[in-house]
Amino acid sequence: MMMTTTMRKKSAGFLFAYSRIFHSYQPLNLHHNNSLLRSGTSFCTPISRYFGSIRECRKAFQASAINHFEVPSGFRFRRIASLSSLVQRNPSFSRLNSDDIEFFRSILGEKNVVQDEDRLLDANTDWLRKYRGSSKLLLQPRSTEEVSQILKYCNSRDLPVVPQGGNTGLVGGSVPVFDEVIINLRLMNDIVSFDKVSGILVCEAGGILENLSSFLDNQGFIMPLDLGAKGSCQIGGNVSTNAGGLRLVRYGSLHGSVLGLEVVLADGRVLDMLGTLRKDNTGYDLKHLFIGSEGTLGIITKISILTPPKLPATNVAFLGCKDYSSCQKLLVDAKRKLGEILSAFEFLDNMSMDLVLNHLEGIRNPLPPTMHNFYVLIETTGTDESSDKEKLEAFLLRSMEGGLISDGALAQDINQISSFWQIREGIPEALMKAGAVYKYDLSLPVEKMYDLVEEMRVRLGNSAKVIGYGHLGDGNLHLNISTPQYDDAVFAQIEPFVYEWTSNHRGSISAEHGLGLMKANKILYTKSPEIVQIMGSIKKLLDPRGILNPYKVLPHSLHS
Amino acid sequence: MMMTTTMRKKSAGFLFAYSRIFHSYQPLNLHHNNSLLRSGTSFCTPISRYFGSIRECRKAFQASAINHFEVPSGFRFRRIASLSSLVQRNPSFSRLNSDDIEFFRSILGEKNVVQDEDRLLDANTDWLRKYRGSSKLLLQPRSTEEVSQILKYCNSRDLPVVPQGGNTGLVGGSVPVFDEVIINLRLMNDIVSFDKVSGILVCEAGGILENLSSFLDNQGFIMPLDLGAKGSCQIGGNVSTNAGGLRLVRYGSLHGSVLGLEVVLADGRVLDMLGTLRKDNTGYDLKHLFIGSEGTLGIITKISILTPPKLPATNVAFLGCKDYSSCQKLLVDAKRKLGEILSAFEFLDNMSMDLVLNHLEGIRNPLPPTMHNFYVLIETTGTDESSDKEKLEAFLLRSMEGGLISDGALAQDINQISSFWQIREGIPEALMKAGAVYKYDLSLPVEKMYDLVEEMRVRLGNSAKVIGYGHLGDGNLHLNISTPQYDDAVFAQIEPFVYEWTSNHRGSISAEHGLGLMKANKILYTKSPEIVQIMGSIKKLLDPRGILNPYKVLPHSLHS
Repeated sequence: MMMTTTMRKKSAGFLFAYSRIFHSYQPLNLHHNNSLLRSGTSFCTPISRYFGSIRECRKAFQASAINHFEVPSGFRFRRIASLSSLVQRNPSFSRLNSDDIEFFRSILGEKNVVQDEDRLLDANTDWLRKYRGSSKLLLQPRSTEEVSQILKYCNSRDLPVVPQGGNTGLVGGSVPVFDEVIINLRLMNDIVSFDKVSGILVCEAGGILENLSSFLDNQGFIMPLDLGAKGSCQIGGNVSTNAGGLRLVRYGSLHGSVLGLEVVLADGRVLDMLGTLRKDNTGYDLKHLFIGSEGTLGIITKISILTPPKLPATNVAFLGCKDYSSCQKLLVDAKRKLGEILSAFEFLDNMSMDLVLNHLEGIRNPLPPTMHNFYVLIETTGTDESSDKEKLEAFLLRSMEGGLISDGALAQDINQISSFWQIREGIPEALMKAGAVYKYDLSLPVEKMYDLVEEMRVRLGNSAKVIGYGHLGDGNLHLNISTPQYDDAVFAQIEPFVYEWTSNHRGSISAEHGLGLMKANKILYTKSPEIVQIMGSIKKLLDPRGILNPYKVLPHSLHS
Repeated sequence: MMMTTTMRKKSAGFLFAYSRIFHSYQPLNLHHNNSLLRSGTSFCTPISRYFGSIRECRKAFQASAINHFEVPSGFRFRRIASLSSLVQRNPSFSRLNSDDIEFFRSILGEKNVVQDEDRLLDANTDWLRKYRGSSKLLLQPRSTEEVSQILKYCNSRDLPVVPQGGNTGLVGGSVPVFDEVIINLRLMNDIVSFDKVSGILVCEAGGILENLSSFLDNQGFIMPLDLGAKGSCQIGGNVSTNAGGLRLVRYGSLHGSVLGLEVVLADGRVLDMLGTLRKDNTGYDLKHLFIGSEGTLGIITKISILTPPKLPATNVAFLGCKDYSSCQKLLVDAKRKLGEILSAFEFLDNMSMDLVLNHLEGIRNPLPPTMHNFYVLIETTGTDESSDKEKLEAFLLRSMEGGLISDGALAQDINQISSFWQIREGIPEALMKAGAVYKYDLSLPVEKMYDLVEEMRVRLGNSAKVIGYGHLGDGNLHLNISTPQYDDAVFAQIEPFVYEWTSNHRGSISAEHGLGLMKANKILYTKSPEIVQIMGSIKKLLDPRGILNPYKVLPHSLHS
């Protein structure tokens, strides 16, 4: 058991009490993880940890990891080829002409009417190069009024549009399918107001999540959501897709924390629902229609959001468990015993750990030498460093005693916290380096969640590696199937089985990534025909000509 | 300073530290409140604390407090008289006939088709006897299928209906305006399932909030909402009205905690949105349309709700502050320093305290002998009694040092906790005993909130007492204007001024009580005409014949 003097001193009483009372159990292995630390690694979210921003990440992949990236990329382009054969360009849409360009220049100025090929290529292509449109025009409005003028014009001309934020989505929601006009909100990134008494932030939709977080940090607050893509994604996109992320288990979904929206409808009408009130029961709460509708009902231009105060004490434990049942029991206990300080409860299986250890540099197993069947990362956030740590230590002790934890390490400083998070958050990158990957983002009842991984393993045998990890605290499984290369036979074994299984267990085929283009036709696996019909009616009501982000979210049969 | 031995022993270190360091300040007055306790008072929510249930409460008023109750009651009936002259019965609605009764009997059985006059009088009249309809029929379905059959029939016959839960609303939303058929869901009160791993409860809409709380208590969980009316109100009504209550500052609104709904539309279609998932991003999240729409878009029949684990440690402090600015600063500090354990932050002004002390029996000032300008009740809930208490004590000490608190008492047991809550929650009853009362439930930016109370005092001079209290942590002011009797001149000074002032400060004219019949025509003070227009379109889409809870929520111009 590795342990430094400082560490021993801090936990001596705890270890003594432990070994005296529970000597028949394996002691909690509180490793000191200096050896894991990479110099210069700061405590921030994963993708930006590695690359600073999505753009840099994409460049890094393109420049240095071609071999690893081309496989899934090629796979993805193959997928989109087959999808586009299913989708027909809506024949009622007009084609862009020179008068249109002239009009847009008259309201936006030359500079913000972009026709440059390189910039269009970027804006036409999604982050993972899975989807690519053929838009000839990118507009960059600077105000709600400009967005309103653009949409009013496009609606009158039957010109379809795709609203675009940081373009970090995974389901093809933020890039054109055909020649839709791209409306990127990046220039609308002002902070409108911040109320330190209530913690309510009002900002424009183009603000980058990380920039908003930095602004709030200086005020002693945090954003209620945190994502790997924070360095590039925009708050308007986060709200449009109802992004989940790492803080959901503590601060809930955006349906709870978004207090108000300003939205421009397809016909240019501006809906002012930008309340800054925690409570408002005056009629139907229409803002929720726009949260998670992926830009198909309106373009969000401003957001009012409740931000929690920044709490000073963060503790992270990385634990090994013998089976999935132990992980579940640990979750129940953690909710009860850590209660108000629990801020993350993530799990990964040994296949995930194996991938990370084999494919990412500078990551070492924090619980050597044995591999455990499952790993759990628990984070607490609170007001008091020492009492929170005491509480967490006591919880871990009891869990060891009860046999729920086989081994564990408690981070001693911010660098170790960062190291533990890197393991959990490094999985997507490790998967990409390992070969082709079929990714599924599913919500399932916690007790059934891992059954799907096991069934999929039986189903696929030796033809693929099946990896399960995710936000256990939210019942959100990231199921990933890794193969050396794209394989139609494997794919036929996965789909539609994975969707059918999820549907049979009343799960959701998209927990936090949305439907976009990728899953628009899959919606009936999660929602009933009556519900989808009403969604279609609401789409028709708010966007009768269907110009807003066409071919996305709703099944293509409803678009035609 | 009163203090028992036990009390001294417990807080000796704290007091010593305090008096040593901050002797120039008035010491924190930790009174022992045994003298306040009424035998048999248990720790539960206020109305049920006094009367057990709304029904008993109504009886108590009717039996023993006629003198006090008749005045506001008379006032209220006068108000409704003037309202009904504004609302015309929709001439397209049919009148009930014997074939209708026959049909309902064939599907519900004799017993659940109620035509008894006494029972109808009860169901036609709201809790405060402010509104009274003239329905001749009360239906009591036992299943979603029965609700569906009722609505399908009513829709085909153009028979209007009013869905009714516990009938505890304050804005006339749950009683008929004319002869609408009353559909009460009290027989649909089954618990469908409870998942102890995720804390997700699925239940029928007629379950009484207190019964659900008791069920969860045995499982080690709590409902994420708590209301004075818990002994009578039904969860379906809570969700339909997006009820707020005492736990909102900690657990957020029902838009965050309700995970799924089953809803019957006007034409009898059953919408199954009864997901039990924390995350589901598959299309538009339609359930939010029904949360807070007060039964005008559909009848909620089942609810899936995320329930937090029950935490063992509750602490309550009752504090005196010299001005409103101190209350605000204290809120900011409490959010930061108490952070994750803060579960309530309520305030009342000295007029509120005066009313409670003068009109309710068995309530004594916990901070004698002086009266303070403002009082704040802070509650913490957490996992660890002693560390939570230490944290709260340290916070109170610092706040005394900073001059934000002038005096304070920390409850030493559950009875004292109950006593402190009784003061805050006794205000509505004290107001009713004091005479006629004009009640307003407003959301306002916290820093502006009390300005309205002060402006109203200047405006009304000696003609009325203006009382301000409420959920400071949520920016929710309960503004109450108390007069010896109803007075047209006073009323003309209050309205529309109070709505205009709220509107000018971007507040909400209904924070948590809804619009119902009372404020349907006032919606434009908070929502823009464009928004109200869209609400009207959605109403038309989901209930084209307008049979569901007519004349409520939307302005009457939209109904005609």
